Amino acid sequence: MTLGNSENQTVPNSHNMHHHETHHETRHLTQVLKRAESEGTNVAAKGCCLQSTRYVSLTEKIEKRIENNDRWYSLEFFPPRTPSGAANLIGCFDRMAAGQPLFCDITWHPAGDPASDKETSSMMIANTMLNYCGIDTMLHITCYGAKKEAMLSYLNKAKDFGIRNLLALRGDPPVGEEWDPNKSDFRYGLDLVKFIRQHFGDYFVICVAGYPQGHPDSVSYEEDLGYLKEKVDHGADFVITQLFFQAETFIKFESDCRAIGITCPIIPGIFPIQGYASLRNIVRLAKLDVPKEILACIEPIKDNDEAIRHFGVQTCLDLCRDLLESGKVHGLHFYTLNREFATIEVLKKLGLWLEEQPMRALPWKKTSSNFSRSKENVRPIFWSIRPKSYVHRTSNWNEFPNGRWGLSSAPSFGMLTDYHLFYMKLDASRDELLDEWGRELTCEEDVWRMFACYISGEKNQIGKVIRHFPWTDEELSSETSLIQTNLVEINRRGVLTINSQPAVNGKPSSDPIVGWGTLDGYVYQKAYLEFFTSADNIPALRHVLKSFPNVNYHFVNKSGKVNETNIDDEQPIAVTWGVFTGREIIQPTVVDSVSFMIWKDEAFSLWTERWGKLYEPESRSHAIIENIADTYFLVNLVDNAYPEGSSLWTILEAMFEYQKNAKNTNNAS
Amino acid sequence: MTLGNSENQTVPNSHNMHHHETHHETRHLTQVLKRAESEGTNVAAKGCCLQSTRYVSLTEKIEKRIENNDRWYSLEFFPPRTPSGAANLIGCFDRMAAGQPLFCDITWHPAGDPASDKETSSMMIANTMLNYCGIDTMLHITCYGAKKEAMLSYLNKAKDFGIRNLLALRGDPPVGEEWDPNKSDFRYGLDLVKFIRQHFGDYFVICVAGYPQGHPDSVSYEEDLGYLKEKVDHGADFVITQLFFQAETFIKFESDCRAIGITCPIIPGIFPIQGYASLRNIVRLAKLDVPKEILACIEPIKDNDEAIRHFGVQTCLDLCRDLLESGKVHGLHFYTLNREFATIEVLKKLGLWLEEQPMRALPWKKTSSNFSRSKENVRPIFWSIRPKSYVHRTSNWNEFPNGRWGLSSAPSFGMLTDYHLFYMKLDASRDELLDEWGRELTCEEDVWRMFACYISGEKNQIGKVIRHFPWTDEELSSETSLIQTNLVEINRRGVLTINSQPAVNGKPSSDPIVGWGTLDGYVYQKAYLEFFTSADNIPALRHVLKSFPNVNYHFVNKSGKVNETNIDDEQPIAVTWGVFTGREIIQPTVVDSVSFMIWKDEAFSLWTERWGKLYEPESRSHAIIENIADTYFLVNLVDNAYPEGSSLWTILEAMFEYQKNAKNTNNAS
Repeated sequence: MTLGNSENQTVPNSHNMHHHETHHETRHLTQVLKRAESEGTNVAAKGCCLQSTRYVSLTEKIEKRIENNDRWYSLEFFPPRTPSGAANLIGCFDRMAAGQPLFCDITWHPAGDPASDKETSSMMIANTMLNYCGIDTMLHITCYGAKKEAMLSYLNKAKDFGIRNLLALRGDPPVGEEWDPNKSDFRYGLDLVKFIRQHFGDYFVICVAGYPQGHPDSVSYEEDLGYLKEKVDHGADFVITQLFFQAETFIKFESDCRAIGITCPIIPGIFPIQGYASLRNIVRLAKLDVPKEILACIEPIKDNDEAIRHFGVQTCLDLCRDLLESGKVHGLHFYTLNREFATIEVLKKLGLWLEEQPMRALPWKKTSSNFSRSKENVRPIFWSIRPKSYVHRTSNWNEFPNGRWGLSSAPSFGMLTDYHLFYMKLDASRDELLDEWGRELTCEEDVWRMFACYISGEKNQIGKVIRHFPWTDEELSSETSLIQTNLVEINRRGVLTINSQPAVNGKPSSDPIVGWGTLDGYVYQKAYLEFFTSADNIPALRHVLKSFPNVNYHFVNKSGKVNETNIDDEQPIAVTWGVFTGREIIQPTVVDSVSFMIWKDEAFSLWTERWGKLYEPESRSHAIIENIADTYFLVNLVDNAYPEGSSLWTILEAMFEYQKNAKNTNNAS
Repeated sequence: MTLGNSENQTVPNSHNMHHHETHHETRHLTQVLKRAESEGTNVAAKGCCLQSTRYVSLTEKIEKRIENNDRWYSLEFFPPRTPSGAANLIGCFDRMAAGQPLFCDITWHPAGDPASDKETSSMMIANTMLNYCGIDTMLHITCYGAKKEAMLSYLNKAKDFGIRNLLALRGDPPVGEEWDPNKSDFRYGLDLVKFIRQHFGDYFVICVAGYPQGHPDSVSYEEDLGYLKEKVDHGADFVITQLFFQAETFIKFESDCRAIGITCPIIPGIFPIQGYASLRNIVRLAKLDVPKEILACIEPIKDNDEAIRHFGVQTCLDLCRDLLESGKVHGLHFYTLNREFATIEVLKKLGLWLEEQPMRALPWKKTSSNFSRSKENVRPIFWSIRPKSYVHRTSNWNEFPNGRWGLSSAPSFGMLTDYHLFYMKLDASRDELLDEWGRELTCEEDVWRMFACYISGEKNQIGKVIRHFPWTDEELSSETSLIQTNLVEINRRGVLTINSQPAVNGKPSSDPIVGWGTLDGYVYQKAYLEFFTSADNIPALRHVLKSFPNVNYHFVNKSGKVNETNIDDEQPIAVTWGVFTGREIIQPTVVDSVSFMIWKDEAFSLWTERWGKLYEPESRSHAIIENIADTYFLVNLVDNAYPEGSSLWTILEAMFEYQKNAKNTNNAS
């Protein structure tokens, strides 16, 4: 889990700090908080949430890091070929995001319909990276072969997705095709830089490519440097270089750039060798020569993947160290080739991979680095288990709730039809899921056991640990551990919990389990439980709830025909809130009855879409899941008396008891 | 102190109640909460504050009361003759409002420039009653002698002030003038009723007068009843009768009205005899005859005011009881003649005067019953000591903050120039104030002692209890008692507190001292202190505050040239908040630095305007007050660490200590 990739997100009250140097020195500040302070000229808590509301461009962030002699890295990926490759790549983004890169970029594949809505397109991968993985994103765009009108539509589409950073490139003709200037409205990368500035002003940060060994198509190294100077003069904000193998290559290039007046940041492109074939392939594409020293080392081990990887990491590490030690380099740009191992290895050894997780800015995972969401600080609790789905279903909103849950927002949730989008897919095969959830279900109790195993972490009947769960994108939240025993117990008895939180009565905001926000506050929660349960339990629950006036409830079946609540439909309930020094109260999680009715369609559909469909349509297993989806109720309970802990366990115990007695009475009569 | 006059204000979550009958029966519900529930068809907590957002008209309220067999009363006043009479009358409104009348009305005096902006006009008194005294208000309007254009401007002016109820009357020619139909665009009260409906639709509730003994100008009782029927048929909502002396008079009149098809509420007008002269005067004006039985009783005691008052109360009480026992009367309308004694006496004996104060809906006194403010639930704490001033200075706002303090509001505070408006005047003479605050000041310490006496309640040097205070409209708030000892101590030492609250860490909302809102919640406060203090203390305070990073501070001098704070100017601080069943967090009081700069001009000016001007301009006393205003600082402190109580006393103690040491050092060197 990570939150801190965007510097827009977590910002301490630095204003306060200036007045209390002595005390603040002794305070524990996470790295992200320090970063946020050092970036942006005035990141003092603006607006009413914990976030800066000022847009801080990637260029500003890079410049601040250089100014503060602070190191960073970025990661380059290319778009996947297949839908399942896309789902895997998103998983990779989520894992790489944990190390807190400054940004990631995605290459532009003209032959792959790069601006389309296909889940494998460059545009959609960039959209996903930014909006669903919370990574500050740079999209490559090449102009070779493009007409101005098409280019305008690409750029507008990127803008609509919230993308703010572009790597403007000329690009090459498709393999086997000759260079034909007449096919294109753009001749050079410079034309694209000018075009972007002309049509979008300063909206986009523009990065351009530098060639430490000269561009293969240039007449000379010097002429190529001149082109780069022109691109910078016409609006490029910084430079990333083509890969190279020796530190001196970059150091000379950097000096040459400075000598002709290029003053913007120049970031070395780093290529960790990860295999013999991929090395040959990339140098061929880049029209580079691999230095003899490297070839001499690698040829003898070319069939030993492990040895090559090891060599690659070591070579890359040496290169990075040389660069960083030169004093001319603060940031490293990695060509990952969509692989994690080598880059993470190098970053860890360099100390750039940030192991320490930042404090949560808010109790839920934001998952989006889109600036339009920078002020968002309230969400219904239902989607806290499916944050990507929430971001998707609210992606058409122009404003996001800040300070209060705006009721008018609720009806404008996006349709459920898209919920199976690739960035919401589980990165597990059907086979793995069957192993975890059961190859064959014989009764509803098999389902109950799956829930209990998932929450307890115990192995299932065939000895598998259940790592995936139909209702969550995420791992079980750490606070589940506080109520795990109770949860397992009720799941075993057919109260199938999909979301929950314990009551918290004013713990320090620095609490490692329930804390969030800046470190100078107190956090609170009302106990919350959300579960599916058999319709048979509903009359008992209804009866028991009469004795608990402090508890809000909502229960509904799949069709919505039974829909009972004591929640006012114009009155959301704050279930998580925090009190911080020098601020209004922040209340980031609410339960409201209108959103719940939208959520319930999603929650019920996951029975079928995620679980039922693993089985043959005519199978008993399939029928069991379908029957549960069709007849069970979805229930949420909020105990408002948070200072007294939670009465929800008592309520469920009383429900079981009442239900048992009712059955006995029926049996006796 | 009162809050509950408008049924728009306090509304329980009745929705919840329906589901938990058994438990709610045992709950303590104040009368106002019960009323609110019984009124308005769906007063379940709407919006995010504790208030109904639906407009409930006076007619609806009356009908609901009749339906529920619930009793009520209303009070009639006439406009004062002089500005000081106006200030006294406002004081009377505040006291009468405490008994929770359903509404009050103010008569229209055509000869007294009734629609003008003069503080004695009917219009301005109605405005004050509604907007500054929190009373649901009905304004009389007479049409005799009026042109349509003028009438339209009167009605629009009333509408702009938020007045929703009118008593539409024909009126009479000025005394000594003959009836002249040509002077007027209106001939009958009926014309005015039609005119109001024609131009304002249902915006206004229209009440009309009924004459149980026939209108003196009518040909017959029957013809007069016919006119009344016509007025009701053309849009009058209910009827208030002319005064009468015997229950049968009303009972017959009511029956006669019903007989000809008048179905709307008919409310008896009650006149408590309060003196011989006023009785003779009113019957002459109303062209009524005093029954012989009454005259027989009153003539013998006509020079004994006490005996007459006693007789008046007893006679009135008998009349009211007869009416209420008839079953035809649920509400009583009192002609108070602007006097309190008799009416309150009768109401108390009837059990209609509501002694029990309703729970505070919010921690501050709303003071306005204007529907436009019904959703308002956030205010800066500074004006909590001058709520009428706050209402005045924000009367030009179109929307009022709800849920959060909207920062954009702050700059649009009304000018300070009007702050001496009559409804903000102290109802005390210069002489009384000099007795309380000191006829002659010899040094600043005399001023400090006045503050200490005011807060302690101890008598001053000449044995007077200080009941008035330059900075407050209100009595000391009850929670001051919780920190009184500390406050008195620091005031004696020159920290002149004008506003404060203790820290509260989650007390039940039903707490009699710090509670507010519905009864099912928990309330919180951050410790707050606001005071004037000598510039000499500021360096010491500045030094001490460095060791208290959890404390927000703001200090400023009169000119604003010295203006230091660690409060983010875009970030208000919630200092009072509440957590209730089934709701978002309510945070009704904030400290923000922008509003504080507006408030400080008002706070500093009160030294001069309220206190300094009591003395001769050249006097020493005058110079002392002026010097304080010119050189002292206004300081506010918020301790954010509310669970640990208040460190503010420690801070001030450290400030005194540091200051003493600094002085000693200076003296020694």
